[in-house]
Amino acid sequence: MKFCSNCGSAVARRVPPGDSLPRWVCDQCGVIHYQNPLLVVGAIPEYDGKLLLCRRAIEPRYGYWTLPAGFMENGETVAQAAQRETLEEAGARIEMGQAFSMLSVPYVNQVHVFYLARLLDLDFAPGEESLEVRLFAEAEIPWKEIAFRTVGLTLRRWLADRAAGNFRFHAEDISAA
Amino acid sequence: MKFCSNCGSAVARRVPPGDSLPRWVCDQCGVIHYQNPLLVVGAIPEYDGKLLLCRRAIEPRYGYWTLPAGFMENGETVAQAAQRETLEEAGARIEMGQAFSMLSVPYVNQVHVFYLARLLDLDFAPGEESLEVRLFAEAEIPWKEIAFRTVGLTLRRWLADRAAGNFRFHAEDISAA
Repeated sequence: MKFCSNCGSAVARRVPPGDSLPRWVCDQCGVIHYQNPLLVVGAIPEYDGKLLLCRRAIEPRYGYWTLPAGFMENGETVAQAAQRETLEEAGARIEMGQAFSMLSVPYVNQVHVFYLARLLDLDFAPGEESLEVRLFAEAEIPWKEIAFRTVGLTLRRWLADRAAGNFRFHAEDISAA
Repeated sequence: MKFCSNCGSAVARRVPPGDSLPRWVCDQCGVIHYQNPLLVVGAIPEYDGKLLLCRRAIEPRYGYWTLPAGFMENGETVAQAAQRETLEEAGARIEMGQAFSMLSVPYVNQVHVFYLARLLDLDFAPGEESLEVRLFAEAEIPWKEIAFRTVGLTLRRWLADRAAGNFRFHAEDISAA
């Protein structure tokens, strides 16, 4: 950030009065420009015991496999965002289940949320951001080609919970190390 | 948003190529300025069966009671944000428990998350954003003076879960109606 989005003047980085963190501040019009974490929301679509993954057609992690997920938009609920991303990236219709994981990724200023979901039919197809979409049985999951650590963690928790016969909610943190 | 925060030129509102929603776009430098939901994160501090609430010293909802909560900052985890806000608003030290509620509020572009927490001592005091901080037994909760619907819903779910002897995770939506 270099310029004020309200008045177009140059902004400065400093701690505003009464605040404790440095912010982008406009000395011309007085607006403080806060920057906050983003929500990345997705689904874990299951069909006949298999899970639906998408192979990414965009950076970062082009060519790697992910659960359908993306940035939550203004005006939607978390569950709606998961359902929309699944339709956009995998062309797949799902019935939403319960929230399954909420993973803080503080070193990239993100929180990732995944929902349980039931794939309604096999009529799916890659969207613009996917090269390929397919169902994976547990033994087929391409662990070395998973795009993001939050996706790998969510898949491991899902498989463990299924083996235990009880899907719980998992709130965890991913550290940079 | 009127000006590009990258180059200072005037921005226009339109759907970028390959996108499906209108964004603030800079025709000068090409940057697309996305706007996304904010995370509001807080705790439900419990001590001896009572819950800690703060009376707000700021707008919106000046003078109304809330659970300690606020905007999550870059660089922290969801649990860290809840702990920090509890210290800032109530001067209170807590031991974090499990995530308890995640409430979408699409008409204000927010997601509110609350954690179970154990108040560690009675040495709390209002911070700059609070007029008053105190513990409430169930019968004392000021239901008509609760600041936000997400706080009221979280308190009701907490009391019901305690009565049932089982704290679960609650993902719900708050509608504008």
